[in-house]
Amino acid sequence: MQIGLIGLGKMGYNLALNLRDHRHDVVAYDISETTMEAIAAEGVATAATIGELVQQLQGRKVVWVMVPAGAPTDAVLRQLAPYLSMGDIVIDGGNSNYKDSMARAVQLKQAGIHLLDCGTSGGLTGARHGACTMVGGDAEAFDFCEEVLRDVSVEKGYLYTGKSGSGHFVKMVHNGVEYGMMQAIAEGFEVLHKSDFDLNYKEVARVWNHGSVVRSWLMELVESAFSKDPELAALKGVMHSSGEGKWTVETALDMEVATPVIALALLMRYRSQENDTFSGKVVAALRNEFGGHKVESAE
Amino acid sequence: MQIGLIGLGKMGYNLALNLRDHRHDVVAYDISETTMEAIAAEGVATAATIGELVQQLQGRKVVWVMVPAGAPTDAVLRQLAPYLSMGDIVIDGGNSNYKDSMARAVQLKQAGIHLLDCGTSGGLTGARHGACTMVGGDAEAFDFCEEVLRDVSVEKGYLYTGKSGSGHFVKMVHNGVEYGMMQAIAEGFEVLHKSDFDLNYKEVARVWNHGSVVRSWLMELVESAFSKDPELAALKGVMHSSGEGKWTVETALDMEVATPVIALALLMRYRSQENDTFSGKVVAALRNEFGGHKVESAE
Amino acid sequence: MQIGLIGLGKMGYNLALNLRDHRHDVVAYDISETTMEAIAAEGVATAATIGELVQQLQGRKVVWVMVPAGAPTDAVLRQLAPYLSMGDIVIDGGNSNYKDSMARAVQLKQAGIHLLDCGTSGGLTGARHGACTMVGGDAEAFDFCEEVLRDVSVEKGYLYTGKSGSGHFVKMVHNGVEYGMMQAIAEGFEVLHKSDFDLNYKEVARVWNHGSVVRSWLMELVESAFSKDPELAALKGVMHSSGEGKWTVETALDMEVATPVIALALLMRYRSQENDTFSGKVVAALRNEFGGHKVESAE
Amino acid sequence: MQIGLIGLGKMGYNLALNLRDHRHDVVAYDISETTMEAIAAEGVATAATIGELVQQLQGRKVVWVMVPAGAPTDAVLRQLAPYLSMGDIVIDGGNSNYKDSMARAVQLKQAGIHLLDCGTSGGLTGARHGACTMVGGDAEAFDFCEEVLRDVSVEKGYLYTGKSGSGHFVKMVHNGVEYGMMQAIAEGFEVLHKSDFDLNYKEVARVWNHGSVVRSWLMELVESAFSKDPELAALKGVMHSSGEGKWTVETALDMEVATPVIALALLMRYRSQENDTFSGKVVAALRNEFGGHKVESAE
Repeated sequence: MQIGLIGLGKMGYNLALNLRDHRHDVVAYDISETTMEAIAAEGVATAATIGELVQQLQGRKVVWVMVPAGAPTDAVLRQLAPYLSMGDIVIDGGNSNYKDSMARAVQLKQAGIHLLDCGTSGGLTGARHGACTMVGGDAEAFDFCEEVLRDVSVEKGYLYTGKSGSGHFVKMVHNGVEYGMMQAIAEGFEVLHKSDFDLNYKEVARVWNHGSVVRSWLMELVESAFSKDPELAALKGVMHSSGEGKWTVETALDMEVATPVIALALLMRYRSQENDTFSGKVVAALRNEFGGHKVESAE
Repeated sequence: MQIGLIGLGKMGYNLALNLRDHRHDVVAYDISETTMEAIAAEGVATAATIGELVQQLQGRKVVWVMVPAGAPTDAVLRQLAPYLSMGDIVIDGGNSNYKDSMARAVQLKQAGIHLLDCGTSGGLTGARHGACTMVGGDAEAFDFCEEVLRDVSVEKGYLYTGKSGSGHFVKMVHNGVEYGMMQAIAEGFEVLHKSDFDLNYKEVARVWNHGSVVRSWLMELVESAFSKDPELAALKGVMHSSGEGKWTVETALDMEVATPVIALALLMRYRSQENDTFSGKVVAALRNEFGGHKVESAE
Repeated sequence: MQIGLIGLGKMGYNLALNLRDHRHDVVAYDISETTMEAIAAEGVATAATIGELVQQLQGRKVVWVMVPAGAPTDAVLRQLAPYLSMGDIVIDGGNSNYKDSMARAVQLKQAGIHLLDCGTSGGLTGARHGACTMVGGDAEAFDFCEEVLRDVSVEKGYLYTGKSGSGHFVKMVHNGVEYGMMQAIAEGFEVLHKSDFDLNYKEVARVWNHGSVVRSWLMELVESAFSKDPELAALKGVMHSSGEGKWTVETALDMEVATPVIALALLMRYRSQENDTFSGKVVAALRNEFGGHKVESAE
Repeated sequence: MQIGLIGLGKMGYNLALNLRDHRHDVVAYDISETTMEAIAAEGVATAATIGELVQQLQGRKVVWVMVPAGAPTDAVLRQLAPYLSMGDIVIDGGNSNYKDSMARAVQLKQAGIHLLDCGTSGGLTGARHGACTMVGGDAEAFDFCEEVLRDVSVEKGYLYTGKSGSGHFVKMVHNGVEYGMMQAIAEGFEVLHKSDFDLNYKEVARVWNHGSVVRSWLMELVESAFSKDPELAALKGVMHSSGEGKWTVETALDMEVATPVIALALLMRYRSQENDTFSGKVVAALRNEFGGHKVESAE
């Protein structure tokens, strides 16, 4: 079917190719002309503005928005909405906070526009060759788009999760789980690394991926990473984060749910961003105060 | 090849069938006669005693011990060793503590007997149809047994991990990772469960297993569990543990490695075993003392 | 000096008596007539409405608001503001979120009214006999009220913390620290409790309060609690919370600061409010799926 | 009374002066002659060897051992025991593991010698001017030494905790609580430090020490530390540890008690000893693998 696509970042670009491969009629727009030229060279139609993009769509319009969460998504929706009419559908495939999606759905609904909040997992290879999509919003709008959602996802890899917000909510929790799983795996390899055994981490990841209880796509990626750099010697262990782990913890706090593992996975990321901590200084100072224990000097 | 197998519990029984299917010549022993009759009915030879079991083996003997870690393993090794000779090989496929395995290897070595410490993952279906095995000990002994280890494991699912103890060590850390991954997944579903969205947990697990970052065997098992009991209503959330998570944390403490996620996964299991806590009483009492906050009464 | 006091709950009532003892001229108001009669019997003047309360104050007016944080504080400020004039001062002595205090200060400032955000610690005995007060807002307004703040606080127990919001911010963090300290103490007593030693908890708290590193007011309260109920047998270990620990964690997340101890102290409170957990069910179900481990049945 | 004292480290030296001030007749021994000369100059008698020390004691002998836990304590006890007779008493005032104390008590008992395991808190000033002592062992031996224990402790600052091991056990748990309290305080100051408010940490510690819920000796030490270095700029935040926090966590694991706050306080100490972590590298590598997220390079 015909579909507009706004945003050709790492995820959006791969999605465009994915849609094209499934013979959907994509009209793409991105603020970067270079990117637009690149996707055009791949056989995807482009539009010079968001307005033109919508004009190229026929009948009941469907526009997939794939831009960073927060202000960028708001900006695109603000630009896009005036061109849409009653019954048209916007799919937000980005990592929006589910509460934002709920509010945006209410607002767009006032103009009769449907918002499907589509959590998208699977990383870049997923966007390119088959993602995992969790979709909230009006059931009728979902049904209208189901063909597209099915096609961009791996087999069995899409789900209608219910009312507005539920798609991004399920995706948010997915990311919280991901934080915990990644930290668990990482701690395990640190224990291996600190041991006196002389282990080949890539081989350990490989064997764990074949028949063990912890076999998983993340462990396959660990194997891949160690195959490129057997001790990860080129990397610094700074763990950045992009928001959804934090939202999961905040949501858990609001619900008064104990999520210690997800919370600690997040906090260890923050800790990794510091070379030294003020809390460490306070403890070191205290130990010196009461026990005369030596302190180390800051350089 | 010919192999003795001591211990026909849930894991050992399935392993016996697995070995038989690969046309190895198994002689099995278990303290339960009923179990021995059952395995005999499956076409596996049995021996009435450990001594008889060894006598039925020809040439360089290989005996796979699959009994609970700790005292039971010690007891079996004590009974078994006198029947073995220089060069014979014992495979400990149980969940022994790697330090015990290191000590046992040294001791058996005094009689020229090799101990391979073989961490075995994959649960019951793994033992039956293809496990994941991590094997430490003398390289020569491993080479001698490699055919058997390859056959009982899934393809690419076995690894020689190095010197004695390394097999059980890698398996121990695997279980630590498993604890963390399980708790991360479980916390995620609790957040879903406490939300206002009306989610089908089985379907969420299903979609997460197709294309998402968290796809994994554990998530497949989650899907399976929810397919049997959509809200897990029949279960009590008491999380028992069998030792390896604890050993992982203890090992991390000895190495001074920060493993907060694995540690918390373990501590939440302990917490789940309590209906009420003394620490909770202390905090409740304190809040009452300084703020006059109401306390709840024990029944 | 003359001071209005709105809110005669547990904290406000004790504060009224504290102010009276220091010979301040208090005019009090509470929605409960019974409470007003009680405080009147203690020699404190009362007013039938907030409007009348303000009318009884002379010159530059100071009104101390001591009501629950959030909506009740907003409601009182909305009622109170119209009666105040340029230069008058409102002290919010409740547990308001510091961001609310910052916003309220900006708003009241438009009418020339000063808001001092006064974090108040020390519990009921503190409010009665000498509190600990942390006060943010305009320095000039603080100076005008310093006499009152000094009088209601223990010696050295008040601090001007700087611009608006800082008083409630410092109080919020104080409560976060309090959560961590309480949980640390509580965990210690649980370890004592689970041991094979036959310990007298009150005596342990007593000795720890005399010369040890952990001597503290909280430990004195522990001693007091055990002196009333040696095993806390009458209590259920449900740990409620009133918001500031949660705000501390949320603030730490916003700042990307790792506060694992404060976060866990909060999460264990949430955990204590549950008899059983969905996460526990998921882990129990998983262990059954892969290992055939027994599960416990929900009643 | 007459008392032998072995070990004049930071704690033992101060204890010798403390005992002397209470007019006890101390005979001290240390491996360092310089230290022995120093204590002799303070009017404390010394002995050239452990044997001579015992010979200088009359009647029923009491020897206080104040040396590092583990091997040094074992070595001293091995040297000392042959000089003692039925009924003599050894006080181990160090930080021995309670399980070691239990085993040593059994062993010394075979020669009729009593071991009192005396946990000593309060740091250097406590040892000098009044410690907090928790004492396990035979009640009769405790009674014989009570005068000395009372004198070296602050008023109400000593406790007979029961059978052998209980003194060091209660002290161990005390230290676990101390770890948690210190980390809670430290996290609080880190939140203050990262905020936009311009706070004087010494003043915050001061006000929290006067009337607040968190007033405590540790907070007084925080105030003292900030009074010397207002931002702790000279310190590196590396938090070392000396064993008892770890033992508390290990004991909690053995008892299957959830002690998340004490455990995390310990793990954050270990984390502080690392500039970079292998676990961080693994997570960073994973984020790069699935999302193309940038990694930071190790230098």
